[in-house]
Amino acid sequence: MEDLQKRIGYTFKNTDLLTEALTHSSYANEHKAKHIKYNERLEFLGDAVLSIVVSDYIFKHCPELPEGELTKLRASLVCEKTLFEFAKQIELGKYLVLSKGERNNGGAERPSILSDAFEALIAAIYIDGGIEPASKHILNFVIPAIKNSKKKKLNDYKTALQEIIQKNPGEQLEYVLVGESGPDHNKHFVVEVHLNSNVIGKGGGRSKKEAEQQAAREALELMGY
Amino acid sequence: MEDLQKRIGYTFKNTDLLTEALTHSSYANEHKAKHIKYNERLEFLGDAVLSIVVSDYIFKHCPELPEGELTKLRASLVCEKTLFEFAKQIELGKYLVLSKGERNNGGAERPSILSDAFEALIAAIYIDGGIEPASKHILNFVIPAIKNSKKKKLNDYKTALQEIIQKNPGEQLEYVLVGESGPDHNKHFVVEVHLNSNVIGKGGGRSKKEAEQQAAREALELMGY
Repeated sequence: MEDLQKRIGYTFKNTDLLTEALTHSSYANEHKAKHIKYNERLEFLGDAVLSIVVSDYIFKHCPELPEGELTKLRASLVCEKTLFEFAKQIELGKYLVLSKGERNNGGAERPSILSDAFEALIAAIYIDGGIEPASKHILNFVIPAIKNSKKKKLNDYKTALQEIIQKNPGEQLEYVLVGESGPDHNKHFVVEVHLNSNVIGKGGGRSKKEAEQQAAREALELMGY
Repeated sequence: MEDLQKRIGYTFKNTDLLTEALTHSSYANEHKAKHIKYNERLEFLGDAVLSIVVSDYIFKHCPELPEGELTKLRASLVCEKTLFEFAKQIELGKYLVLSKGERNNGGAERPSILSDAFEALIAAIYIDGGIEPASKHILNFVIPAIKNSKKKKLNDYKTALQEIIQKNPGEQLEYVLVGESGPDHNKHFVVEVHLNSNVIGKGGGRSKKEAEQQAAREALELMGY
């Protein structure tokens, strides 16, 4: 458990809370007479702590997003799949307290069990130290996830264009740098995207990559996507 | 707007936030050129603030409830129907900024519009003053709602028994006080519930009502419910 506390960068005053967060109901059921606390109530609370921290962050840091986009982004950050990824980053499965049966059945790798435990861990930090450390803990995972999802979105225009063109064998895409201006700290690049040597899009940006993306985007638009 | 601030017991440092919370998208659409802010983004954030405040409160104040019951209770406290009731308590509809069309169509009384504005108002307080005043504001509504729902549940045994008995015409229920003891500040009552003069349940409590409920509960149990 000390190891886990180092991984998450938080030291519990009351380690019983950490134990509760890591204990799955299957273990409590296996040892019924002992009335062991398990993590379901903490998971209930952790879910709400996660939601306010993520909501607060994206509300303030994405002022350009309308409500619908904020809701989609929040949903993608608090869903089981994402929490499962977060849990794996700290190898949470290693620390889970499961029944023998559940462990033998691969419970320590199951997305639902790991994402629930990740939420319970959030609540344990929240009860032990308040909203500040809970928020810090959550944002350690959420901020990189938001950056990654932005990167993926940026890559999407080129990927999308490539996928469409590939459907017609023999067609070939090429990105051609046609302009470069400005001083080193404030460069501007212009790129054309060619399809079999015909220009189908042109775009500018602060890097070649960005300019290529914009060119691909224009091509997609011209093609009616 | 001063009137509303008095009603909710919170004075805004930045009243623009209050205006935004009260402005429906229909009004912004009606005056598109002015780029007026409306309450949808605040509603997004308010939803999460409401959830953490309610979750935190019931987690700490209902230690006997398992996760499933906590989830049900939270859902009942943050649903549109409940928020609509809260909004009516402060006559929020009077302060809403709607388009002419929406106002003429009864928008100021519509549950969805009022509950959304109530959530936006929560977010406005949260941004303006932090989690403390937002929490205080929310609990002003939520604590009485929890007490009411407990009261309703308490009434349920008598109502449930009555409904079962009514199915057989001619059967008659009667509650009979059979014991009363203790000093005034710590009375204990015992009540029997009779069905056609047969005792079918007996219960005790600090008030006649409570004793009747317990008697009805015992009757229901004996009848296999």
